[in-house]
Amino acid sequence: MKNHQFAFVPTELPQIVAELTTTRFLDASNEQLPADELLKDLIKRTLVNYRSDASKEIALADLMVDDHQDARAFFKEHQSVERTQFYNLALQLLHFQTNEDFKLSDPITTWQQFQLPIYDGAKTTFEAEDVLRAWYLLLNTHTKFGQTLLDDLAANGYFAQFSDLKQPLIFNGKTQAVFNTDHLIREVVYVESDLDTDHDGKRDLLMAHVIRPAETEAGLKVSVLFTASPYDQGTNDIAGAQLTHNVDHPIAHKEPNQFSYSDVESHYQPGNLPAKRTGNGKTATHAEEHFQNGWGYTLNNYFLARGFAVVYSAGVGTKDSDGLRTTGDPAETLSATAIIEWLAGKRTAFTNRNGDVKITAWWSNHNVAMTGRSYLGTLQTAAATTGVAGLKTCISEAAISSWYDYYRENGLVVAPGGFQGEDADVLAEETFSREQRAGDYHRIKAKWDQQLAAITSHQDRRSGNYNQFWDARNYLKAVANIKADMVLVHGLNDWNVKPRNVYNLYQALKSVPVTTKLFLHQGQHIYINNFQSLDFTDMMNLWLSNKLLGIDNHANDLIPPVTIQDNVNPGTWQLPADWGTSHSKTIQLNDAKALQQPFDQATPAFLDQLSHEQLSQYTKHESSGQYDEWFNDLVNNPNSPIESTRLIFKTKPLDHPITIDGKVKVDLTMASDHNVGLVSAMLIDYGDAKRLNVSPSVLAPNAINAGYQWTKDSLKEFTLQANPSPSKMISIGHLNMQNRQNSYRVNELEPNQYYDLSFELQPTFYTLPAGRQLVLVIYATDLAMTVRGTMGVTYHLNTTQSSFTIPLLHNPD
Amino acid sequence: MKNHQFAFVPTELPQIVAELTTTRFLDASNEQLPADELLKDLIKRTLVNYRSDASKEIALADLMVDDHQDARAFFKEHQSVERTQFYNLALQLLHFQTNEDFKLSDPITTWQQFQLPIYDGAKTTFEAEDVLRAWYLLLNTHTKFGQTLLDDLAANGYFAQFSDLKQPLIFNGKTQAVFNTDHLIREVVYVESDLDTDHDGKRDLLMAHVIRPAETEAGLKVSVLFTASPYDQGTNDIAGAQLTHNVDHPIAHKEPNQFSYSDVESHYQPGNLPAKRTGNGKTATHAEEHFQNGWGYTLNNYFLARGFAVVYSAGVGTKDSDGLRTTGDPAETLSATAIIEWLAGKRTAFTNRNGDVKITAWWSNHNVAMTGRSYLGTLQTAAATTGVAGLKTCISEAAISSWYDYYRENGLVVAPGGFQGEDADVLAEETFSREQRAGDYHRIKAKWDQQLAAITSHQDRRSGNYNQFWDARNYLKAVANIKADMVLVHGLNDWNVKPRNVYNLYQALKSVPVTTKLFLHQGQHIYINNFQSLDFTDMMNLWLSNKLLGIDNHANDLIPPVTIQDNVNPGTWQLPADWGTSHSKTIQLNDAKALQQPFDQATPAFLDQLSHEQLSQYTKHESSGQYDEWFNDLVNNPNSPIESTRLIFKTKPLDHPITIDGKVKVDLTMASDHNVGLVSAMLIDYGDAKRLNVSPSVLAPNAINAGYQWTKDSLKEFTLQANPSPSKMISIGHLNMQNRQNSYRVNELEPNQYYDLSFELQPTFYTLPAGRQLVLVIYATDLAMTVRGTMGVTYHLNTTQSSFTIPLLHNPD
Repeated sequence: MKNHQFAFVPTELPQIVAELTTTRFLDASNEQLPADELLKDLIKRTLVNYRSDASKEIALADLMVDDHQDARAFFKEHQSVERTQFYNLALQLLHFQTNEDFKLSDPITTWQQFQLPIYDGAKTTFEAEDVLRAWYLLLNTHTKFGQTLLDDLAANGYFAQFSDLKQPLIFNGKTQAVFNTDHLIREVVYVESDLDTDHDGKRDLLMAHVIRPAETEAGLKVSVLFTASPYDQGTNDIAGAQLTHNVDHPIAHKEPNQFSYSDVESHYQPGNLPAKRTGNGKTATHAEEHFQNGWGYTLNNYFLARGFAVVYSAGVGTKDSDGLRTTGDPAETLSATAIIEWLAGKRTAFTNRNGDVKITAWWSNHNVAMTGRSYLGTLQTAAATTGVAGLKTCISEAAISSWYDYYRENGLVVAPGGFQGEDADVLAEETFSREQRAGDYHRIKAKWDQQLAAITSHQDRRSGNYNQFWDARNYLKAVANIKADMVLVHGLNDWNVKPRNVYNLYQALKSVPVTTKLFLHQGQHIYINNFQSLDFTDMMNLWLSNKLLGIDNHANDLIPPVTIQDNVNPGTWQLPADWGTSHSKTIQLNDAKALQQPFDQATPAFLDQLSHEQLSQYTKHESSGQYDEWFNDLVNNPNSPIESTRLIFKTKPLDHPITIDGKVKVDLTMASDHNVGLVSAMLIDYGDAKRLNVSPSVLAPNAINAGYQWTKDSLKEFTLQANPSPSKMISIGHLNMQNRQNSYRVNELEPNQYYDLSFELQPTFYTLPAGRQLVLVIYATDLAMTVRGTMGVTYHLNTTQSSFTIPLLHNPD
Repeated sequence: MKNHQFAFVPTELPQIVAELTTTRFLDASNEQLPADELLKDLIKRTLVNYRSDASKEIALADLMVDDHQDARAFFKEHQSVERTQFYNLALQLLHFQTNEDFKLSDPITTWQQFQLPIYDGAKTTFEAEDVLRAWYLLLNTHTKFGQTLLDDLAANGYFAQFSDLKQPLIFNGKTQAVFNTDHLIREVVYVESDLDTDHDGKRDLLMAHVIRPAETEAGLKVSVLFTASPYDQGTNDIAGAQLTHNVDHPIAHKEPNQFSYSDVESHYQPGNLPAKRTGNGKTATHAEEHFQNGWGYTLNNYFLARGFAVVYSAGVGTKDSDGLRTTGDPAETLSATAIIEWLAGKRTAFTNRNGDVKITAWWSNHNVAMTGRSYLGTLQTAAATTGVAGLKTCISEAAISSWYDYYRENGLVVAPGGFQGEDADVLAEETFSREQRAGDYHRIKAKWDQQLAAITSHQDRRSGNYNQFWDARNYLKAVANIKADMVLVHGLNDWNVKPRNVYNLYQALKSVPVTTKLFLHQGQHIYINNFQSLDFTDMMNLWLSNKLLGIDNHANDLIPPVTIQDNVNPGTWQLPADWGTSHSKTIQLNDAKALQQPFDQATPAFLDQLSHEQLSQYTKHESSGQYDEWFNDLVNNPNSPIESTRLIFKTKPLDHPITIDGKVKVDLTMASDHNVGLVSAMLIDYGDAKRLNVSPSVLAPNAINAGYQWTKDSLKEFTLQANPSPSKMISIGHLNMQNRQNSYRVNELEPNQYYDLSFELQPTFYTLPAGRQLVLVIYATDLAMTVRGTMGVTYHLNTTQSSFTIPLLHNPD
């Protein structure tokens, strides 16, 4: 175990005393005790479930102070408290086990190996003040199961025993789990938007699920976590699968154009809106409709136990809302901001879809944060770019910043990894959950069929070009409007929402006067708030306590600007100053010094062709968005049908480690023997090694508690593969040879003529130890992402005029 | 979807009216309404979360009555209710979706295809009485997510709206989810056993976790589900792994003996017990120690919402209890029965480990059922064989009936699938969770080391023989004592606790005057209470309502005696009258008519030898307790290192389907060229086919609700493989050639001398469609289960005097 805690706020003694008093560890009965008696008293206060003194004493006998005496025996006689004794007890309170995790003879070494924060301001013998200081630090230290000891105690009922806690309790700058989640109020409202996407002459009402602490009924005003999730109301999986596009066809030749950006620029036209509903003059304080628990984002649940409200809304075209799905256009953005405006007191909602009785968010303090991953993260970015008032911050995970970068690339249809054949229309159909209410669907079906046909047409799979449809779905255009502080989280192995999405947003935010924090992990399309090695949840608590509750806790300073998980050493996080602003090194593709096998021909060729049987064999089994057998043949197998379909450039083994920091650029001079051309480039880490597993491993099931008798999550961490693997994809990129200038300008492609092609691979942050080799594969059809005509096009590469350029964290010279 | 519901109790109209009244679907306000108004009123009562009449009317508009009118419009004018209209609404209430699941033009066909119970007592037009009868049936019908509609409504708060329900509510013979699980009381007691396994001069106190409804405080006496689970207090995984035995060594030659059973029979000697604790004269009604939620067996949680108490206890040697682990001996049995006796008012417990204040189970009605799987199921069988008063029934899943059948077979060490090298000592160490309390461990360590060494010695891995150690752990000896009605659940592909365990218990129970119900599923070591296709949970409700609450609900008649999941058709359950009493057919191993490739030699040979590299390659990746590459080479690959290590006998393709019902018997005449010999026989279903997947697939995550705002489970079902597989293991068996008579009598083995060997494979129930082939593989070292010396022994088989005999469900002639 390696622990990284960034959310600890250094605290002076008077404040320590004040906070230990607020949290009821300290009071008149124990504040004057000598060190040993004080420590005994503090430990007994943690024994929440032992409700008699006799049972607490028995529990003390279960703890060892050193390798020969238990705590009951130790505390029986007045003794000095040695530092090692304190940390032996501390390790046990943190659920570490003697023998398996540490030795009673030397707790300090283990403590330091685990990177737990240590109190070192004392001599080896603790005075009472040392006990207080060390105890305070201990309450803020992570247990074996990745939560602070205080959170662990809260989960065991520490705060539940004090029934008079009815408002947020701040400890070390973070809000604590003192709210009774059994009493949460769950109600439904219908927010009136400035949209009429289903053109029924009435503004679209958007259903929202509100979960708020019971204490709001007694007047507490609370901050809100809002998750805009089109999936929450159900998905039409069968209909979505039926709509999924066939990709086993050649790319089309495109007529050249002379487009500039203005030709493809989109300007949102809200059109003439129907009048607002006037209601019947009544305003209710409580909803007519309620709902049951049923959502699982543990970060939201964590904050529900800490006195925040949580709101979910699925947006236009979802079950119980009006309107039609659009897959990411401004109407969906306004679906999200409408909810925020209602939460900020600036918009009307009703108690049912008749729209007669109004209801306000009277319990809201008007400070809203957004949370969620993937589409849910995307809508955060979308909402933030409107500059909507009330939205203080986003915790945007695995978010799309431009839908073109999700479904397209450089003039090509390029699928999200694992979702071959999906497109904007498929996603629209999947999330059009109005379909699940038979009556509602009956009334809207004709309009929906029209809308879906329009999306299918405008997304234009034939050309793969950037156009007005995609420009309307490019949030990067409006980053300058962002007023919310942004937390960006993304997986460096996320081939679904690829890393370019977060990279472009991160870079664009540099010129916007908000605070941005970037977290890059080694996972795919996952959450990271259940990792053992990083106090991500604590940091988000620090962050939201600052942004929403206004606590002066130095969140902006304590949370590192850039936190990146190491891909070589498990449970390790790096803190570079920035991402992607680095040195670089260029390798020519005919460089005999750099490459292991420079080609004997100056212009080697490959033939993009597979039989139907080969294609079907390779695409039979998909795992994690990749076809393993194909990848293995592509990179590791010289005797396979793939051999002749690609060119491989392999560097000599590295004589020192390197860290690739940002976007690898590929400059190629290539010819196609047809009037179409599709180029893929894959960069690979080559060499037998135990790398991180693709997904984090469960270290302890259901070990993380969001609160007392509340939802649980499993503790996870990336671990090393059990057996060495020969290689791993680092990054990838694709280009239509007719889009040599950009994604909307189409150039002619003359067969057998050489063209200069230049494109960037997905940005990364990747360390290769010494001895590894870098492999660049140049090929055409990418079975997992591009259309796969595999139609017999021959490509030639001029290696004398081709190279790739690697951005490096450290100066290569 | 195919629905099998056995727990429905046929009910007459007066009782229907009474039960609909009790559950508040019927009262003075609606009992006189005509059919359409009654139906509208009933549907509106299901709309629990719509709390105003306006919102309920809006919700009605979301339901379609037929393909052109919604329910709001339909009910506006007085209309007759057609049968198809009722079932259109019914399908929607059961969460089936128009278009994806059914068509509004023909709901009846879908209803019948899904095998949902239909009300067919009416003409096509429903009168009010028909509505009542059909509604009652509908409330008992499973939704798309595998629960009755009434359970689904309960999960949505149907009963929670009636706050005055404070005692069990019976509907259709089953107890309903009317209890508020937010208010469960969780407390800890220490039961004094009649044991002193740690020889400290004090009877072992056994900690138990009690969860009981708050209503017990007001005088409600409740039945108890008790789960004896040695794992609940944590496991010592690292220490267990360290103790795991090396299996890469040859089997040992054994000195012949003349043992009869009396030589290995064990007689439990409780020894002289210390006096009982007298206490301090005080008796408490409430505990001193409490605990948090944290266990996950969903069947127990389901009953917590229905007014049962649940008790967990881990037994001797576990954390917070006294004593030492023994792996299955009578002390562990008495650990379990001690808790039952306390629950039945016949034994003393204390509020803490000092043993001064007594506490009774004053809230118990003294009726106890046991639940749980694996070790947890095993301890049910163990407890039942004592005939302990209070134990009314067991729901024993994947249980061991004799520990020799778990760790040994016919004179050989044979591992549970997936746990090579595990043995009784390893399991004892893993479950000795006193080790996790540093103080407690410090005081007990020396005694534990002694105990563990004794187990290691007595289990006798060297011989693999049945002895007194194993006889003390054979519950089959005392089946005649069983007084509890028994539900036995086992996986036909459970290679961890192998099917012989349940088979032997099932057969032995036939002569015991209790009711036994047998469920055999196609899974491995799993629970089945989350399957879509079978109402297992409902049946258990019917069962426990009968056995514990005394409800006269025909449980004994309605639950089939034997329910077996089909291995060919997903979601299908067969109801044979019995298991393993069947016809049979013998195939000689030189039968040229039956076998595809009879051997040209009369005495073919195989050499049990693999290099270290081959062994290490084959055992590198284990999945589901099997080494796939080895299995594939064993059965399907004539060009592998395995080729010469086994003999294969393959039948001609079957000209009609057969169902193997029970134990395949193998009769072999064999010689070994050493003075040791190890024979394995594997029976295989051969032929390309899409078989059931190894594990059930998740159909809908977290879709099953144990109650209102309570724990959830995922809906699962076995689905077919995406791609055909060439073969599948049906069953397996192993024999030490020195144990030709039985598992304790050792015979001499002369090298190169032929001996008659006869042994049974694990019992099964397996259908082979026409066209498939049966394969019998005769080999020696079983990489997944036996020790693996692979030491170069050559075996000869006399095919003219060898055969296998297949038990068949239907007469083969």
